Amino acid sequence: MRLAVLGAGAVGSAVAELAGEYGHSVVALADSSTAVVDDDGIDTERALSAKAAGAGLGEADPQDALAAEYDVLVEATPTTLGDAQPGFDHVAAALERDRHVVLANKGPIAERYADVRALAASSAGRVRFEATVGGAIPVLSTLSDVGPGRVETVRGVLNGTANFVLSRMAAEGLEYEHVLAEAQDLGVAEADPTFDVEGTDAALKGVIVANRLREATVEGVDELRAATTSLDEAEVAGITGLPPNALELAAADGQTVRLIAEATRETVRVGPRLVPENGTLAVSGTRNIVELETTHAGRLAISGRGAGGDPTATAVLSDVNRL
Amino acid sequence: MRLAVLGAGAVGSAVAELAGEYGHSVVALADSSTAVVDDDGIDTERALSAKAAGAGLGEADPQDALAAEYDVLVEATPTTLGDAQPGFDHVAAALERDRHVVLANKGPIAERYADVRALAASSAGRVRFEATVGGAIPVLSTLSDVGPGRVETVRGVLNGTANFVLSRMAAEGLEYEHVLAEAQDLGVAEADPTFDVEGTDAALKGVIVANRLREATVEGVDELRAATTSLDEAEVAGITGLPPNALELAAADGQTVRLIAEATRETVRVGPRLVPENGTLAVSGTRNIVELETTHAGRLAISGRGAGGDPTATAVLSDVNRL
Repeated sequence: MRLAVLGAGAVGSAVAELAGEYGHSVVALADSSTAVVDDDGIDTERALSAKAAGAGLGEADPQDALAAEYDVLVEATPTTLGDAQPGFDHVAAALERDRHVVLANKGPIAERYADVRALAASSAGRVRFEATVGGAIPVLSTLSDVGPGRVETVRGVLNGTANFVLSRMAAEGLEYEHVLAEAQDLGVAEADPTFDVEGTDAALKGVIVANRLREATVEGVDELRAATTSLDEAEVAGITGLPPNALELAAADGQTVRLIAEATRETVRVGPRLVPENGTLAVSGTRNIVELETTHAGRLAISGRGAGGDPTATAVLSDVNRL
Repeated sequence: MRLAVLGAGAVGSAVAELAGEYGHSVVALADSSTAVVDDDGIDTERALSAKAAGAGLGEADPQDALAAEYDVLVEATPTTLGDAQPGFDHVAAALERDRHVVLANKGPIAERYADVRALAASSAGRVRFEATVGGAIPVLSTLSDVGPGRVETVRGVLNGTANFVLSRMAAEGLEYEHVLAEAQDLGVAEADPTFDVEGTDAALKGVIVANRLREATVEGVDELRAATTSLDEAEVAGITGLPPNALELAAADGQTVRLIAEATRETVRVGPRLVPENGTLAVSGTRNIVELETTHAGRLAISGRGAGGDPTATAVLSDVNRL
């Protein structure tokens, strides 16, 4: 397949670098201000080196990437809330040209799922978005395989930054501010960590899962629009308000605290929860874990790398292979 | 899809019972001596009640099931070694009629993989076998999604009976013979538990995984035949020879013992191994777990129900849905 990759951050760059190994070529790569486009395949390494050197990816305009001769548009620009722009317009442009779309950007899927499905319904292109939930962990494809109608609850640790902070605090008895600063030094937390530590990122993933669960019970785009949930309807608490002694109290009882996202057909809830210290949900560091409560197959648990360029790129490229 | 289900044990019965919920119909159901066949769909409940009452599934001959008007043959007869009969002949009969095959029976896949692939290569029918490894755990589809060429090692607990025995011995300080008798009472171990406790069952699963890993490096059936491994080449030790104090010694060091199967492109090894007591691999009871070491996405771990009628049937029916 010929890929147009929008976004040249950690995920977009890794997709461009690994595409060849998966048997695909990259005909366009764009960031917010520059792009490189070549219908015979771009020189990914040269473009990324040029960007690293401050020269931009190439001579083309980002809009040119949308006009390239691609089979699959990979939307890996940063997640935005509300109208989810410019990601949503990219998705729309590709579907209007009957091209497939694979997203790593959560915005269009979490915030405008029914709009995306409506566009896909009148396009020959299909939309996949495994990389939006749990990075390398195949959450959504497992959900599809089991059948969204046969999964009752999906719960887990879906934000590596918050998990790193909580697991370091618990293991070392350190203060929140101290561990956050450490996480920022290590590149595990962003300069403005709000999105991660306040639970927003985990909630967006919960919303995506909840909409997949709800989709199983409705037919057609109108019913889907009425059934979809969104971030405003989610019940979200982060880890910043955790009482200082919460982790000690938990430990005294063989438990610990994790930021758990839980999605059912009815609700999306994110917040710090007590979990058994040696239990499945108490993963350490930036690792993510997801449990699916199924109707006929009991509980399935999947853990792995929930973020990072290469792991998330593998989810994108698995989606491309499925198309 | 119209299914012909061969085998009416726990898995075959559950496939027949759940098929309707997955949108499929059952046109034939057979055990080793009786069958019921109806191109308009059989009455599953009546057939299974008749069998339970000792009257057999129906008036038809098991061979009639092979001649039914099905789209997918579900092979759920007991696993046999060597020539893997009669399972192999069932697979061959379906592929020769250009029908799809989904296996829960490990025999034909572990013992005659190249033969199965050769038949599939000249058939319009396809072969899937998710249920042969790890029950409800999507081991093989995750392997396919990541790409078998981008997975280095697959390791885990792949036999629930052995794991039940070891985890009970470790948790309660009980003797092997005592726990085995308990497992037999509970239906977790068979009257003759050899297949499970000697590691054969886990090794067959390891062989299936290893052949999928090797398949990624070869082209065509002849190369596959030269590359495939089999049970005789696996290094297999069970849990019966475990020294009585092995679990105590392990526990003193924060470890425990699990029967671990490990498959790489080079080898298949099964044996009791020390694993951290609270680590990912130390699942309890009959639960299974599989870790995939991937090239670009780090380690993925998946746990769930590795056996049982309904869980294994969900793997069969997910395969049917993928066809």
